[in-house]
Amino acid sequence: MTDADHTVPLGDHYIVEFLGCEPDRIATVAAVRPVLEEAVRASKATPVHWAFHQFEPWGMSATVLITESHICLHSWPDRGYMSADLFTCGIRMEPDEAIAVLREGFRATDVEVSRLLRGVPG
Amino acid sequence: MTDADHTVPLGDHYIVEFLGCEPDRIATVAAVRPVLEEAVRASKATPVHWAFHQFEPWGMSATVLITESHICLHSWPDRGYMSADLFTCGIRMEPDEAIAVLREGFRATDVEVSRLLRGVPG
Repeated sequence: MTDADHTVPLGDHYIVEFLGCEPDRIATVAAVRPVLEEAVRASKATPVHWAFHQFEPWGMSATVLITESHICLHSWPDRGYMSADLFTCGIRMEPDEAIAVLREGFRATDVEVSRLLRGVPG
Repeated sequence: MTDADHTVPLGDHYIVEFLGCEPDRIATVAAVRPVLEEAVRASKATPVHWAFHQFEPWGMSATVLITESHICLHSWPDRGYMSADLFTCGIRMEPDEAIAVLREGFRATDVEVSRLLRGVPG
């Protein structure tokens, strides 16, 4: 597999639905931030920029620019739902480790994971 | 359609592949930033945090936390490829307007758009 092999996907995008989360655990930046930080560490991603936004009366968003691509979270506490996107290039990062940390941190009862290969011409 | 209708998707996620881009137009933060800013304006999104990262010798990433959710870009200039994710909740934002601005700015010859409805239990 060389750089000249244009059939190789460039990105590996994990699209994750966390369902049945405990509302208090996903409602605020204060609750989510330490869980996300631990998830990023566990995945061996390299964070470059972190951004968080608190909604009123509840709900939060986070975007993390990592050298491997990005991690984004958005919560709907009244539905017990948190979306997560983990977009990575290369093989060093371990998204499954991050997903396990997030699941535990949010106390999600169900997790649906889809993977999309990005940058596959045709 | 009320807040109690738990069958309504919570997020509308546009997954976009820009192919055949002009390498110089996607290689640097300096080239991409004004295009992304115009795209965000065109989509009527409300940006809260912008982050950019320049790779060497080429390639860039951008993450924008918007109150509607997020917009993320990652470029592979040597492949003429730019990934874009536009995740929105609500109906105010117009992702198609942003995609049109990005396509023109990157001189993409092909654009593949997929839509995922997020937060649909089951």
